[in-house]
Amino acid sequence: MTRPLIFLDPHPRTEAMVYTPATAAALAEMGEVVTHFGGRADDELVDSMIDRITILVGQTAMPRSRLERAGRLKAIVNVKANWEPNIDYTYAQARGVHVLSAAPCMAPAVAEACLGFAIDLGRGITKADRVFRRGEEAYGIAGSGTDYSLFDAAVGLIGFGNLGRALLPLLRPFGCHVQVHDPWLSDSYLRAAGVEPTDLDELLSNNRFLFILAGVTSENAGFINRARLMTIKPDAAVILSSRAEVVDFEAFVEFGQAGRFRALADVFPEEPVAADAPFRQFDKVLFSAHRAGALAASYARIRDWMLDDIAQILAGFPPLRLQRAEPSQAASMRSR
Amino acid sequence: MTRPLIFLDPHPRTEAMVYTPATAAALAEMGEVVTHFGGRADDELVDSMIDRITILVGQTAMPRSRLERAGRLKAIVNVKANWEPNIDYTYAQARGVHVLSAAPCMAPAVAEACLGFAIDLGRGITKADRVFRRGEEAYGIAGSGTDYSLFDAAVGLIGFGNLGRALLPLLRPFGCHVQVHDPWLSDSYLRAAGVEPTDLDELLSNNRFLFILAGVTSENAGFINRARLMTIKPDAAVILSSRAEVVDFEAFVEFGQAGRFRALADVFPEEPVAADAPFRQFDKVLFSAHRAGALAASYARIRDWMLDDIAQILAGFPPLRLQRAEPSQAASMRSR
Amino acid sequence: MTRPLIFLDPHPRTEAMVYTPATAAALAEMGEVVTHFGGRADDELVDSMIDRITILVGQTAMPRSRLERAGRLKAIVNVKANWEPNIDYTYAQARGVHVLSAAPCMAPAVAEACLGFAIDLGRGITKADRVFRRGEEAYGIAGSGTDYSLFDAAVGLIGFGNLGRALLPLLRPFGCHVQVHDPWLSDSYLRAAGVEPTDLDELLSNNRFLFILAGVTSENAGFINRARLMTIKPDAAVILSSRAEVVDFEAFVEFGQAGRFRALADVFPEEPVAADAPFRQFDKVLFSAHRAGALAASYARIRDWMLDDIAQILAGFPPLRLQRAEPSQAASMRSR
Amino acid sequence: MTRPLIFLDPHPRTEAMVYTPATAAALAEMGEVVTHFGGRADDELVDSMIDRITILVGQTAMPRSRLERAGRLKAIVNVKANWEPNIDYTYAQARGVHVLSAAPCMAPAVAEACLGFAIDLGRGITKADRVFRRGEEAYGIAGSGTDYSLFDAAVGLIGFGNLGRALLPLLRPFGCHVQVHDPWLSDSYLRAAGVEPTDLDELLSNNRFLFILAGVTSENAGFINRARLMTIKPDAAVILSSRAEVVDFEAFVEFGQAGRFRALADVFPEEPVAADAPFRQFDKVLFSAHRAGALAASYARIRDWMLDDIAQILAGFPPLRLQRAEPSQAASMRSR
Repeated sequence: MTRPLIFLDPHPRTEAMVYTPATAAALAEMGEVVTHFGGRADDELVDSMIDRITILVGQTAMPRSRLERAGRLKAIVNVKANWEPNIDYTYAQARGVHVLSAAPCMAPAVAEACLGFAIDLGRGITKADRVFRRGEEAYGIAGSGTDYSLFDAAVGLIGFGNLGRALLPLLRPFGCHVQVHDPWLSDSYLRAAGVEPTDLDELLSNNRFLFILAGVTSENAGFINRARLMTIKPDAAVILSSRAEVVDFEAFVEFGQAGRFRALADVFPEEPVAADAPFRQFDKVLFSAHRAGALAASYARIRDWMLDDIAQILAGFPPLRLQRAEPSQAASMRSR
Repeated sequence: MTRPLIFLDPHPRTEAMVYTPATAAALAEMGEVVTHFGGRADDELVDSMIDRITILVGQTAMPRSRLERAGRLKAIVNVKANWEPNIDYTYAQARGVHVLSAAPCMAPAVAEACLGFAIDLGRGITKADRVFRRGEEAYGIAGSGTDYSLFDAAVGLIGFGNLGRALLPLLRPFGCHVQVHDPWLSDSYLRAAGVEPTDLDELLSNNRFLFILAGVTSENAGFINRARLMTIKPDAAVILSSRAEVVDFEAFVEFGQAGRFRALADVFPEEPVAADAPFRQFDKVLFSAHRAGALAASYARIRDWMLDDIAQILAGFPPLRLQRAEPSQAASMRSR
Repeated sequence: MTRPLIFLDPHPRTEAMVYTPATAAALAEMGEVVTHFGGRADDELVDSMIDRITILVGQTAMPRSRLERAGRLKAIVNVKANWEPNIDYTYAQARGVHVLSAAPCMAPAVAEACLGFAIDLGRGITKADRVFRRGEEAYGIAGSGTDYSLFDAAVGLIGFGNLGRALLPLLRPFGCHVQVHDPWLSDSYLRAAGVEPTDLDELLSNNRFLFILAGVTSENAGFINRARLMTIKPDAAVILSSRAEVVDFEAFVEFGQAGRFRALADVFPEEPVAADAPFRQFDKVLFSAHRAGALAASYARIRDWMLDDIAQILAGFPPLRLQRAEPSQAASMRSR
Repeated sequence: MTRPLIFLDPHPRTEAMVYTPATAAALAEMGEVVTHFGGRADDELVDSMIDRITILVGQTAMPRSRLERAGRLKAIVNVKANWEPNIDYTYAQARGVHVLSAAPCMAPAVAEACLGFAIDLGRGITKADRVFRRGEEAYGIAGSGTDYSLFDAAVGLIGFGNLGRALLPLLRPFGCHVQVHDPWLSDSYLRAAGVEPTDLDELLSNNRFLFILAGVTSENAGFINRARLMTIKPDAAVILSSRAEVVDFEAFVEFGQAGRFRALADVFPEEPVAADAPFRQFDKVLFSAHRAGALAASYARIRDWMLDDIAQILAGFPPLRLQRAEPSQAASMRSR
C-alpha cells in the first residue's frame, strides 16, 4: 500500500516553528514527507505532486482547479491563525477535504497576555515602575488611588471567537460580569456560555475593561471608529489585541494619550511601525509589538495539535483539535 | 438598656479608609460611637472609657491590665493586616474577646497584583513597552523568544496564608502545578487544598514562578538568604510581595539586576526607599511601591466585613469574615 | 422575496415535543411552515415540495437523488439523538447542507440520571428503602457497611461523546479519577479533557464505577461481551445507559443478579421488555425503562436549540448548538 | 522529657472506627496512648490521669472542675459530629484548650447521599424500579412525564453549616439557583458564598428541591412545623437529612404519603424506628436508615484529620482540619 504523502509548505512559519526533529520523526512515521521552507512553494513544485498529496500543511494556494486534481487530498492544515483567500473553501468542503487552522493554538498565549495587559492598565504596573525609577513614587494607597481591579468588574469583549473563549476562564475567578458583542453568535449561545450578549454601543459605554478581540472581515474594517471610541466609559482600560484594522487606530492612541481611557496596543496598522511614528512618544499608552500570541508554547501547541489531527484523519476519524473552516466565514476574512 | 459603645482608634487607618459616611451611619445604628483619628488615642482617653467599650476598632494597646478592666469588651477589630505585639492575645481569648484582623480583606488585591506581576515578568510586558519606545522592538516571536507563560507552569508559593489562598484560584485556569512551603501547615492540609507540600530548598530550585507571600515572625526574618536565593532556578520569575524582611533584600535585587532571575519587589526594607538607593537604577528589576494590596476596593472590603462581623458579635453570633487571631501565632508576628 | 420553506416531518417526535405554540410562532416568523405529524411523511408529499424546502426538520429519507432536487435546502435538522442511515451524509456535506442532530440536547438529563444511578448503586438507596419497608433495616454504618462513594473514586467511561462529556462536570466535584475508552478520540484530546485514555480491558478491571455510554455502530455491537463482563472489578457499579446492543445483555443482568457487580440497565435489547422476561425478577439489578434522557426539559432544549440554529442558518451563519454530522461516522451508526 | 499522654475514650465510636492499627501506630509515635472502648470511661479512670492527659479523644465529660485539674490538656477531640453538653466550652476556651469535632468529616458522605436522594425523588429512580418489576413500566417520556431535574432548578437549603457547604459544590455543575436560610449567618456572608439568603417561609414556598440540613438546638426544635410544611411548593422534593427533631416528623411523612411533596427521610425521631410504625407502609416516601453520613470513608477521614490535628497541636500549631467549638453555639446544641 502506498504511504500517504504529507507536504509541508508552511511559510511564513519556519522550520523551527513547525518542523522540529520530534515533529519530523512523528510525521515520518505517518507517511512520506516533502517539505518546503523559506518562502511559499512555487506552482511547479506543488503541481508536480498535487495528485499524490494526502495532507497539505501550509497556506499553499488551493483554487478549485488545483483541488480538482488533488484526488487523494484529505486535509489542508493551515498552521497560521488566519484564513487566506487563496483557497476555495466551499469546493474543499464539497470534496470532503478538511480545512483546518491553528488559530486556537495561539489563543491561550493571547488570553494570558490580555489578562496581563488588563491588570497592568488597571493596577498601573508599568506606570508605577517608571515613577519609582524617577524617585517620585508614593507608597500604598497614596500612590494607587486611581488603580482599579478586575475583581467584580464590568468587562466587555468585542468578539467571542478563539480569543474571547480562551480569556473567559481566566476572568472567572475574578467574578467579572462579562458582556459580549459578536454578531456571528446568537444571544442564547452567548448566554449559555455565561456572558451577556450586548449591543456594541452599550458595551463600549458600560464597561470598565474592554477587550478588542474581533477578527477583521471584508465588512467590519474600522467599525470601532472615532465616534464609537468617544463613547467608551471614561478611564476604562482598553486592550487592542486581535487586529488593528477593526479600530480607527489613530484615534485609539490619541484618546489613550489624552487620558480618555487607558490604552494598550499589541497590533498596529502597519508592522513594523515606522521609526518616526508619532505615537511612539505617547507615554500614556502601553505598547507591545504583536507579542500576545507569540510564545514558544504556542508553536509547540501547533505542532502537537497538527500531529494529533493528521493522525486522526489518516486513521479515518474526524480531526479534534484544530479549528475547521466554515466556508462562508473563512472566505470573508481579510488577511494581510 | 445601654447601647453598646463602639470605639474607633484605627490609626494609621484614616477616617476616609474606615469611617465613610455610610459606615458611620451603619455603626451608629448598632451602638454609641466614639472615634479618634490622626494618631493613636492616648491612654487617658482609652482608660476613661475602657470599662464601657464593647467593640474596639483599631490597634489600641490591650495589655492584660487593661483587658481586665474591659468588662464589656466583646471584640477587638484590628483594621490592618498585621498583628501588633501590644495585645495580650492569650488573655483576650481567655476572656472570650474576639480578636480579629483585616488581613483577608487585602488578599484579593494582592493576589491580582501578584498575577499581574508574574505575567509581566514572564511575558515581558513592561520591558517590551520600554523597548518599543526606544524603537528597538522586534515583532512576534522575534521579540518574545525569552517569554514564558503561566500555562502549565511550575509555580512555588512561599507561605500559604491569606495571600497564597487568594492567589491559588487565579492560577487554577492556567493549569499550573503548585508547590507550597509553609511550616505552619500540615502536608495533608496542603494536599487537600490541591497543592504539593515541598521543602523550601526544593521549591526554590524547581519552579518557574516563585511567589514570596510569607509573613515575618520573630524567627523567620531573612530565611530566604543569599545562599538560598542563589539556588533559584535560573531565569525564574520571583515576586516579593509580603514582607521584605523575609529575604536578603540586597541580594534579591542584585541577583535580579544580574539576570539570575526576573525579580519584582513590591515591598522594601525601609519605606519610603531612600532617594539615593542604588537599586533604583536596576533597570532589570520591576518595582512597585507597596501597592499590591492598596486599592480602594480593599478598604471597602474592610469596612463591609467589619460591619458584618460587629453585627454578628453584637447579636451573639461568632464573626464570619475577618480573620481570628491564633494567640500563639499572633504573638510571634513581627510588625514594624 | 420568497420566504424560506420550513418543513417539519419529525416522527417519532410528536407535535407536543417539537412544535408547541411558542415554537410554531417562532418558526412562523422565520418562514413558511409545513408540518406533518403522526408518522413519516410519504414520498409524494416530500417530493411535491422538495425543491422549495430550505429547512427540513426530521428524519425524512434524503438519498442523493432527492438531495439533488433540493436546490434550496440549507439544513436537515434531525430532532432525535441518532443518525439514521437514510441520508446520504457525504453528498449533503458536498452540497453545503448542514446535517444536525439533537443528541446533545438529551445529554444533561442522561448525565444527571447516570449520576443518580451511580449514587444509588454505590450508596444503596433503592435497596435500603426496600429493606426499611421490610423492617429489616440497620442504622448507620451497621446498615451501610458495603456502601461506597464517588468521592475520590476510580471511574471508567466507555464512550466520550455527548453523554460522557456531559457527565464529566458532574463528577468533577467528587474528585474522581476518570479513565476513558473511546476509539474515535486521540489520547492527547482525552488528556486535554482531563481524563486518562485507557484500553477497554484495563478500564473494566480498574474502576469502581463504570458508565457504558458508547453508541452502537455496524462494528462495535456486543463488544462488551460475556468474557469482558467477567473482568469487571468485583462489586463495581456498572451503569448501562446508551445502547443495550453494545453489551451481552443477558450476561450483564445475569452477573448483576449474581452479585459479581452492581448493575443498572436503562436500555434493553427490545423495548418494551417482554412481560415474561426472566430478568424482571432479578431483584439485585436496578432497572429504568429508557428514562435517562426522557425529560420535559430535554424536549424544551431541542426546541430552543433547533430555533436557535435555524435562525443562524437562515441569517447566513453557521449553526452553534446542535451536533453536526461527521459524514463517515454518521453513516456507520446503527439505528433501530 | 515526658511524652504527651493521649487518652482515647471515644464511645459510641468503636475501636474499628477510630483506632485501626495504622492509627494506633501513628498515635504511638506521637505519645503515650491509653484507650478505653465499649462504653464511656468511668470517672475513676479519667480522674486518675486527668492531670497528665495532653490530648483527649472522645466525649468524656469535662466540666470546669475537671478541666481545672487538666493542667496539661491541649485539646479535646470529639470524634462525633455533635457537641455534647457535658463540656464547659467557655472554660475550655479560656484555658486555651482546643475543642474540636468531626462534623466536617461526615459532610461529604451526607452531601453525596443528599444529591442521590434528590435525583431519586426528581427523576423517580426507586419508583421506576418498582414499577418495572411489576411489569407496569412505560418507556421514555411516557413513563417519565412527572420527572424533573436539578439542572437550572430552584433549590433551598435550610441550614448552611458543614452539610450545606459540602452539598453546594455538588450542585454547582447543575446551575441551580440556591437559596439558604440560616439564622446564624449574615446575609453578606451567604451572598459571598454564592447563595441567596432567604426567609424560611419564602424558601419553603419557592423551591423545587429542599434540603433540611439544620442542626437542632434548644431553641429551634420543631421549627418546620405542620403549618410550615403545608406551605412547601406542591410536588417539591424534600430531603430530611440532619436531625428529625427540626420538623414535625409525623406531618412530614403524612404529607409525603399524601403526595403534597416528594419526601425522603434519613433520620427519625426515634431510632430504631418501631417495627409497627405506621409510616413504614408509606410507599410514596423514600426511607433511609440514618445512612447518609455512615460510610467507611467518613471514618477514615475522622482518623486522618484527628491524626493531622493532634500532630499540629503537639507541635505548637493551631489545628487545621476538624471543626472548632464556638463556645456559645456548642453549648446550645441539643444532643440525644
